[in-house]
Amino acid sequence: MNTKYWVNINSKLVDQGQAHISVFDRGFLFGDSVYEVTRVYNGVPLFFEDHFERLEFSASRIYMKLPLEIEQLKEEVLKTLSSSDLKEAYIRIIVTRGEGEIGMDTGLANSPNTIIICKKLNTHPKSYYEDGVKLTLSEVLRNAPRAMDPNIKSGNYLNNVLAYRKASISDAHESIMLNASGQVTECTTSNIWMVKGEQIFTPPIEAGLLKGITREKILSLNGIDNLEIKEEHFSFDELTLADEVFITSSTREIMPATSIDEISIGSGSVGPITKKLMTEYKNQVKDYIRKNR
Amino acid sequence: MNTKYWVNINSKLVDQGQAHISVFDRGFLFGDSVYEVTRVYNGVPLFFEDHFERLEFSASRIYMKLPLEIEQLKEEVLKTLSSSDLKEAYIRIIVTRGEGEIGMDTGLANSPNTIIICKKLNTHPKSYYEDGVKLTLSEVLRNAPRAMDPNIKSGNYLNNVLAYRKASISDAHESIMLNASGQVTECTTSNIWMVKGEQIFTPPIEAGLLKGITREKILSLNGIDNLEIKEEHFSFDELTLADEVFITSSTREIMPATSIDEISIGSGSVGPITKKLMTEYKNQVKDYIRKNR
Repeated sequence: MNTKYWVNINSKLVDQGQAHISVFDRGFLFGDSVYEVTRVYNGVPLFFEDHFERLEFSASRIYMKLPLEIEQLKEEVLKTLSSSDLKEAYIRIIVTRGEGEIGMDTGLANSPNTIIICKKLNTHPKSYYEDGVKLTLSEVLRNAPRAMDPNIKSGNYLNNVLAYRKASISDAHESIMLNASGQVTECTTSNIWMVKGEQIFTPPIEAGLLKGITREKILSLNGIDNLEIKEEHFSFDELTLADEVFITSSTREIMPATSIDEISIGSGSVGPITKKLMTEYKNQVKDYIRKNR
Repeated sequence: MNTKYWVNINSKLVDQGQAHISVFDRGFLFGDSVYEVTRVYNGVPLFFEDHFERLEFSASRIYMKLPLEIEQLKEEVLKTLSSSDLKEAYIRIIVTRGEGEIGMDTGLANSPNTIIICKKLNTHPKSYYEDGVKLTLSEVLRNAPRAMDPNIKSGNYLNNVLAYRKASISDAHESIMLNASGQVTECTTSNIWMVKGEQIFTPPIEAGLLKGITREKILSLNGIDNLEIKEEHFSFDELTLADEVFITSSTREIMPATSIDEISIGSGSVGPITKKLMTEYKNQVKDYIRKNR
């Protein structure tokens, strides 16, 4: 691996080459773990409280209790970050159910392991934001909420890995995933949005998707400056007929999409509402960083 | 952990306490791995060829190539087994996509890691086979084949872990999982069967389930001694109205189920066709062991 990583395992900083976990850890055996990714701006992990709350929610949905309180986890994140000397960083926090005898029973392990991984933020090329990216439709459906709920941010990510493959072989930035009813859900590591006239839509949680934190921040802009932002189901066909399309994630912020497979979206260039939201979101980020420095 | 395990990582025997894997292994990060469990009888790993074939199938379905040929893997399994001195054992073989930069792209890693875990076989109490066990219905649906195909035996096992919880809190041996159409699929680590009159049914692969090796061996008995064995969809209600019910897995062989939640199945005791199949399967096992010793 070319990238330099800084790793913290159960509150101890360890060298990247020594960052090991037992093969009896259920995170390894079954993907029995939860995680978060947060972006650090100028030394401040963005919206840390929201990420912690979601981590706690994911853990509770798989009957796990986090081993650290928010202040303790934040301290460990800052310790890891500080060891890296990075100001702009990517932070991944993983909490596994821990080691135990091999079996389905969640009661077999009760000493969760906390792993924090930090690296320099890999920013995307400016052109992605100025010209928009290409998306593609994957044939792999998103897991159903009643089976393996996508709103649990867990170590079971093969569904997304398999769906991403379509993007990889199609030279697209992301793969769009549908649910069994043919509704759009999300992309493999981002939420998806479309603009029709003055209205902005993203699929509701029930479609089967992760309640993204960037997604929440954008939804909170509803009503401001006449923006009408709604959670509503839509089909792939409706998406391709949108005026504007964009995706969101903690590491990407708002990224415009100007084509889906061979279809050009709207004018084929980044639309005015996407641009406006990009500015609004950047202001939310600045505001948080300023208040939390 | 009270159990003693013997571990082989990439052809090296390692102490249980030193059996580690990098936190950058995709098996840990995403459950991006495949695995098999085989039971060893008198020093012989049962139906090893079938397990290898399925491991290869699972790997191909997630675009992975196994690093070892069948003879090499068998040699490593036997080496691990021999270090344990066990004659009756449980063997778990895990192949991960290996270490790599963090991301969805399967191309980020290309050095698979092979982990073999061996332990003494935990046999179930005799009463389970003589009186039958209790099953329970889980509200957690089995993953859909078009999303995360249950016929890929992968490191994404949270779906099963969450479904098993119902068995754990209901004092049942296993949880039955349905698909989104309400059809029975399988249990969390076993296939399920029902007997109606002279006919024996198990759900087809399309229902969303793992093509169990014990299941295949039983299906191969179709036509012998007037046994009529079929793959056919059935509902949970049909299952509860069956004359006999049993589950199958490599470690369990055939295990009768005499109740499902509060419902007694058939006569409430182990039925004649289940008993006959138990004998037939034991003969298949003996035959394989004799020929492969």
